[in-house]
Amino acid sequence: MAGSTFGTIFRVTTWGESHGKGVGVVVDGCPAGLPLKEEDIQPFMDRRKPGQSRYTTKRAESDKIEILSGTFEGMTTGTPISMMVHNTDQHSGDYSSIMDKYRPGHADYGFDSKYGIRDYRGGGRSSGRETIGRVAAGAIASLLLKQLGITITTYVRQIGPIPIRSFDEKEIMNNKLYMPDASAAAMASAYLEKCMSEKNSSGAMIECVVKGMPAGVGEPVFDKLDADLAKAIMSIGTIKGVEIGDGFGVVEATGAENNDDFTIDENGRITKQTNHAGGILGGISDGSDIVIRCASKPTPSIARPQQTVSRDGKKVEIEIHGRHDPIVAPRAVVVVEAMTAITIADKLLTGMGSRIENVRRIWMPER
Amino acid sequence: MAGSTFGTIFRVTTWGESHGKGVGVVVDGCPAGLPLKEEDIQPFMDRRKPGQSRYTTKRAESDKIEILSGTFEGMTTGTPISMMVHNTDQHSGDYSSIMDKYRPGHADYGFDSKYGIRDYRGGGRSSGRETIGRVAAGAIASLLLKQLGITITTYVRQIGPIPIRSFDEKEIMNNKLYMPDASAAAMASAYLEKCMSEKNSSGAMIECVVKGMPAGVGEPVFDKLDADLAKAIMSIGTIKGVEIGDGFGVVEATGAENNDDFTIDENGRITKQTNHAGGILGGISDGSDIVIRCASKPTPSIARPQQTVSRDGKKVEIEIHGRHDPIVAPRAVVVVEAMTAITIADKLLTGMGSRIENVRRIWMPER
Amino acid sequence: MAGSTFGTIFRVTTWGESHGKGVGVVVDGCPAGLPLKEEDIQPFMDRRKPGQSRYTTKRAESDKIEILSGTFEGMTTGTPISMMVHNTDQHSGDYSSIMDKYRPGHADYGFDSKYGIRDYRGGGRSSGRETIGRVAAGAIASLLLKQLGITITTYVRQIGPIPIRSFDEKEIMNNKLYMPDASAAAMASAYLEKCMSEKNSSGAMIECVVKGMPAGVGEPVFDKLDADLAKAIMSIGTIKGVEIGDGFGVVEATGAENNDDFTIDENGRITKQTNHAGGILGGISDGSDIVIRCASKPTPSIARPQQTVSRDGKKVEIEIHGRHDPIVAPRAVVVVEAMTAITIADKLLTGMGSRIENVRRIWMPER
Amino acid sequence: MAGSTFGTIFRVTTWGESHGKGVGVVVDGCPAGLPLKEEDIQPFMDRRKPGQSRYTTKRAESDKIEILSGTFEGMTTGTPISMMVHNTDQHSGDYSSIMDKYRPGHADYGFDSKYGIRDYRGGGRSSGRETIGRVAAGAIASLLLKQLGITITTYVRQIGPIPIRSFDEKEIMNNKLYMPDASAAAMASAYLEKCMSEKNSSGAMIECVVKGMPAGVGEPVFDKLDADLAKAIMSIGTIKGVEIGDGFGVVEATGAENNDDFTIDENGRITKQTNHAGGILGGISDGSDIVIRCASKPTPSIARPQQTVSRDGKKVEIEIHGRHDPIVAPRAVVVVEAMTAITIADKLLTGMGSRIENVRRIWMPER
Repeated sequence: MAGSTFGTIFRVTTWGESHGKGVGVVVDGCPAGLPLKEEDIQPFMDRRKPGQSRYTTKRAESDKIEILSGTFEGMTTGTPISMMVHNTDQHSGDYSSIMDKYRPGHADYGFDSKYGIRDYRGGGRSSGRETIGRVAAGAIASLLLKQLGITITTYVRQIGPIPIRSFDEKEIMNNKLYMPDASAAAMASAYLEKCMSEKNSSGAMIECVVKGMPAGVGEPVFDKLDADLAKAIMSIGTIKGVEIGDGFGVVEATGAENNDDFTIDENGRITKQTNHAGGILGGISDGSDIVIRCASKPTPSIARPQQTVSRDGKKVEIEIHGRHDPIVAPRAVVVVEAMTAITIADKLLTGMGSRIENVRRIWMPER
Repeated sequence: MAGSTFGTIFRVTTWGESHGKGVGVVVDGCPAGLPLKEEDIQPFMDRRKPGQSRYTTKRAESDKIEILSGTFEGMTTGTPISMMVHNTDQHSGDYSSIMDKYRPGHADYGFDSKYGIRDYRGGGRSSGRETIGRVAAGAIASLLLKQLGITITTYVRQIGPIPIRSFDEKEIMNNKLYMPDASAAAMASAYLEKCMSEKNSSGAMIECVVKGMPAGVGEPVFDKLDADLAKAIMSIGTIKGVEIGDGFGVVEATGAENNDDFTIDENGRITKQTNHAGGILGGISDGSDIVIRCASKPTPSIARPQQTVSRDGKKVEIEIHGRHDPIVAPRAVVVVEAMTAITIADKLLTGMGSRIENVRRIWMPER
Repeated sequence: MAGSTFGTIFRVTTWGESHGKGVGVVVDGCPAGLPLKEEDIQPFMDRRKPGQSRYTTKRAESDKIEILSGTFEGMTTGTPISMMVHNTDQHSGDYSSIMDKYRPGHADYGFDSKYGIRDYRGGGRSSGRETIGRVAAGAIASLLLKQLGITITTYVRQIGPIPIRSFDEKEIMNNKLYMPDASAAAMASAYLEKCMSEKNSSGAMIECVVKGMPAGVGEPVFDKLDADLAKAIMSIGTIKGVEIGDGFGVVEATGAENNDDFTIDENGRITKQTNHAGGILGGISDGSDIVIRCASKPTPSIARPQQTVSRDGKKVEIEIHGRHDPIVAPRAVVVVEAMTAITIADKLLTGMGSRIENVRRIWMPER
Repeated sequence: MAGSTFGTIFRVTTWGESHGKGVGVVVDGCPAGLPLKEEDIQPFMDRRKPGQSRYTTKRAESDKIEILSGTFEGMTTGTPISMMVHNTDQHSGDYSSIMDKYRPGHADYGFDSKYGIRDYRGGGRSSGRETIGRVAAGAIASLLLKQLGITITTYVRQIGPIPIRSFDEKEIMNNKLYMPDASAAAMASAYLEKCMSEKNSSGAMIECVVKGMPAGVGEPVFDKLDADLAKAIMSIGTIKGVEIGDGFGVVEATGAENNDDFTIDENGRITKQTNHAGGILGGISDGSDIVIRCASKPTPSIARPQQTVSRDGKKVEIEIHGRHDPIVAPRAVVVVEAMTAITIADKLLTGMGSRIENVRRIWMPER
């Protein structure tokens, strides 16, 4: 089936494998009139680019984004925005030794069960390079949200056993681990060194905060804002858990603790005294910050020998070489942000007609 | 927008408010030939019915499901199955005192922001009664899965600070809290008594295990099996977090710990030695049990005074009376199971054509 | 698969068979704030009701619509509007003699090939009664369009060999054939008497004109306004052809004849000097009237003996008794209008965010 | 909104403007295991390529298709197939004189109303070059259908006043007008010469016949096979009418004439004695040939002066120069075929689970 499209109005379709000619994305439904150039998107690409630190793969991709359609004189036209990155550094040869073995923790076996065909070159479609299309689309969504006063901040909150203990937004871009706490980042670096020396890898927790959300975004029942955010973020290969606001913390909480009392802020606007709900009530934004956390699993490609099975059903040992990060999360930060931006952009567009006076405002402006 | 439909081929549309004429659901796309009578569905309804214990609302609904279409001589015909439950015990009067106040922890403010109209009677569309349609649809999905050898077990794993310490599947239906551990259930009951005496409520954790899954179910990229499960379950009003397999446990795990080595089982089939992945790799089922956990927030309707705001923007106190459970989770167990069943049924149907030989097997059977 | 849902934001799901408990529809995504009572919908129902004239089936259904959800105090709330009509006059016995034979011109064989199960009672899901849900949904769409100054007029343009020769809008509701020309209606009546006396039936052409459309409605490429109208109308069981504007007349036209020159009207607005295009250019409304014509096939149920085949593959003769109209079109007029209204309502809602300034107008009203 | 995606499981997303970097398409959901190389697709591309005869634009595009993803070792893998054609011969300069004027019969005004931005270069997204993506996707769908024994033949049935009078399938590819009647093609050529000499253009009718269809394809109610075919074909810019089987001919037919009696063929299979229905009953294929006809409007770009309006609302004269065909239909033949193939491929994939025994056959093969 067709699983490569996300969104209803702001609709994103990605394509491409790690070792084919390239990877790309088509963004359909972006409103016309958004200023958009390749240099607006590239900084997002650079945040997920390999080779930025010793904790990320040495693959030397420049990941230069190219806009192929959908803009005219530096402005979106409302038509599909096609973007592409050429693959330039695919060492296909690296993978031949594992072509008949299922890598533990990888998607190989699932794909083979499903399709009966296996593109063994670096994960094919399940490679992290697939997220390039998401990030490019997310960049556009973020630029759209910015025009509406909505901004997103995403960072690594914990690496292995090391959580952040302070929050300095400016620090996030300062260290290669995208942690908002320099001293935690230093400790985490040491921890990752140890993982690497042991041919091992580490999990992490990513947090994403959306500021400036209007209230009233999201649909009741199945297409709740938090439900679609959960899908969006769980669809990132490395993510195994998603929570909103206090998340799993609500298990041990009482109603009196967990309810957020409403109040009036200094500008006379309705607001909440606390934000245990993470900015979403009944699937609809309440105007507070949206707070999302997710769990990123340790890189499954580790260099030590592992037990597995071959395609012809024999028990074999596997050793995975090649270029692999000891941690996925730092490069996944911008992917989480992208999926969040795409989801919110789509909800803003699908929810414009919730009241008849809004429909009238667009279609009968003069009357 | 239209947020009341879920699924691509096995497509579920719910409707109804807590205090209208009734609630219902249309299930479109169920394969023809499934034996289906009202009495097959009713046991699922009874698991979420109010009034089963002193921890659930006294509302005296019988919640008798009626099939209005889609079956003929006790068998599904492939056409939409419409089902309905009449509302019979709506004390609308109970709500008049809160009609102009936003209840903390409830969807009131979100709905009002979005629609500018507020059906204040018991939560309207955001009421737990909306889940009746989900459960009826989930019953059909479960019956379909059963025909394919797939079964789902769902239970409460933790209430407030009290987790289960043992697992006895038969015990789940034995206690009103749906816990698989009788002694934990007894302790949880005491805890809930205390909550009630303090006009308070409790959160909980629900776990859901799917057995008998074939490998190869789910789509790559956005429509991953785990992504759609996350959406399905997060779309339940009370849920604030979802995780698959080890979930948030992966944050502190290493790759060597978290990878599941493949092996060959006694029947010569490929299997995994462990199941940290929770039965899903790369968004596609791997043939192991699917393991889902989710966090259910404490009932927001608590009888103690809370601070809030009125529709006309004044700070006011609110006291919520009426019939409210001190815990949502026991009645949500079957809703989680229903959403899981619906999601998997849909994935089985959308994924039938992943290989050209499968398409040939259906459309050129004789050739 | 799920074929019973239409629309993206204004989303309509119908259910029900001719001889089950009833037929109904769920309309999700209707904006909040639309005044809506059952008596607003009933006049649309009455236009397709059987038993209005001697050319329509004697089946004595009252077809009283009941709103089950989605309104509060006479106003839509934005939540799904569920509506239902109970079946009250199903003579199931009438059909037993044909239960094992495929009726020529009917859907029987297709359904049996597809589902392997046949609900032989009066066509089951392919019965004309399925359109009840469409008409109820179309009534809501029409009321929504009316609030935006958009109105739809639909009528029978030709019956058998008898076309209208004049156009008097008031006459449409004056004769039971819904023709805007009293003398053509009289001639057509005589023609239908002859058909009936010969145990035969007649085809017809229906025309639909939409006035008051704003320019800019519809999407480029696949979801063009005319493409979705074609789908909407071709999805009505009796329809075998659809055309927009000059339609098949363009085959023999030249570009100089067929192009509509633009000009400025007396109010200074851009308009076209002619309307060969039928109000749609490049899939997007141009502000002129939308003109649609469609061909309705003769009722396939005729009382004369026909050759057919039984379910067990034997050649047999079939004689269809029961209550059947000699012409479908007069009762299909309101169905064509309903599908047109639904399609346009959906396009208005999906197209609200085509420009970034529109998105800003809704989500940043004060700024 | 997002109007550039078509299909539910076999899902096609096109992108690109006539004068941007290129045009392309992503085909998601194609089953794995289909042999596919660029040279399998190119012949389809060549059928719509400009410059083939003096009746088609002189634009010297090679229209070489490039597969960017989704195949491995000459076989589809089940992942998205991205394809692209680079634009190489865009004379953007040609259009500057019309950049502020709405061309009669073109999409300019609609796009400008909708988006407020106008890419005036050769029609932008509404250019015929958009169909390149459709044709490439249609080529894949056709190859898939061929594996199932389904073939499609498409041709021009009438040009201006000149219909075909005989049918010779081999002749279709013999003349540049794709007519199955050499003498009609000769007469049509003379007619087109006359049109060109008068700076005029001609309409035409295209016919498409699908052979080898299994019965049981299509969904009841809204997603009928004929409904989706109507949408698919009406979504082609030049098409103004679509009909199935006898189409508009049913208006004057009687039921006795129009019903197709069932019978048993020489192989013991159920068939119809006639095919007025065009192979579709109740929205579901009946195993007979599917017959579709559609009306293609005359090229709107004609070189004679026309009256129009400028963007700033003034009446002006427009003269359109550049490279334009006097007839669209011959190059649209393969586009009609492509849209038909895509629609049927999608219906085959969405309809696989209509019976529970089919679901079992795929997911419990050994049991």
